[in-house]
Amino acid sequence: MTRTATSTTDTATTLPPIDTALDLEISRVVPVPADKLWRAWTEPALLQQWFCPRPWRVSEAELDVRPGGVFRTVMEGPNGERFPNEGTFLEVVPERRLVTTSVLRADFRPVDTSDGGPHFTGIVTFEPQADGRSTRYVARAMHADAATQQAHAAMGFHEGWNAALDQLVELASTL
Amino acid sequence: MTRTATSTTDTATTLPPIDTALDLEISRVVPVPADKLWRAWTEPALLQQWFCPRPWRVSEAELDVRPGGVFRTVMEGPNGERFPNEGTFLEVVPERRLVTTSVLRADFRPVDTSDGGPHFTGIVTFEPQADGRSTRYVARAMHADAATQQAHAAMGFHEGWNAALDQLVELASTL
Repeated sequence: MTRTATSTTDTATTLPPIDTALDLEISRVVPVPADKLWRAWTEPALLQQWFCPRPWRVSEAELDVRPGGVFRTVMEGPNGERFPNEGTFLEVVPERRLVTTSVLRADFRPVDTSDGGPHFTGIVTFEPQADGRSTRYVARAMHADAATQQAHAAMGFHEGWNAALDQLVELASTL
Repeated sequence: MTRTATSTTDTATTLPPIDTALDLEISRVVPVPADKLWRAWTEPALLQQWFCPRPWRVSEAELDVRPGGVFRTVMEGPNGERFPNEGTFLEVVPERRLVTTSVLRADFRPVDTSDGGPHFTGIVTFEPQADGRSTRYVARAMHADAATQQAHAAMGFHEGWNAALDQLVELASTL
């Protein structure tokens, strides 16, 4: 496939250079077109069905998919755990790129991060593949310091985000 | 003056509802057109001349005025104090609105805020007045919690930001 540096798609699916001390990332080609992944990411009723690995679930989701718009979820665990998260969208390129953060909330207001988090900025890109049916899905979490990155890794970042992606693919395939 | 809710200018210069427990704000009509204020805000060599009240000075300034672009300054005090700040731009509407934050840096990477700050998201709006020569300038700082807002107020927020605005008006008038 020929690429040009100025292609809109390439720009939208390009991530900043990775910092292995601060970032965690998963990257997989999945057999679903980008537009279906996008729907499952941006419609609250769909997001609730895949966004955290079962048996955890998303009991509430509020998404205003524009820079400065609310991105609020409540995650509930099988033993009654309840984790509310309020963040915001930073960058939105339909069907190609979403940037979110948990250190700002609606209207870009700073979040009190003393709850320990882990807080991060998330970048998700959706790069359509040449077959027209599949998509390279990259999801990165960027942390403020190495200790937070390590804590997030120890919490099972790779297992959790891959399990959620499996659920995303299963759901998006039905759309 | 007739206003419509859909006017681009009105939207760009509209701030979110103020939260008096978390926000600090100055608002003044100044006798300089918006395009000159914009230049003094967005060109590093100009920003350095007004951005902190004398005898403090900005010894370094790096601005990439786009969402996710770097907004880095170093402030130096008369007794050798040196305060580096690295933030980013969140929203850019030329000659009307700038949103910046100190809790994210270039590429929207979270900042380690354990230095105590005060950290905040800043919104600056430039609303041209009917006379064609003056501008309502609003600058707001939004904080994560009331303690940070109070600390910022106690550091002399209103005096400092108004003194910097005086310097901005003086400089922009010469452009």
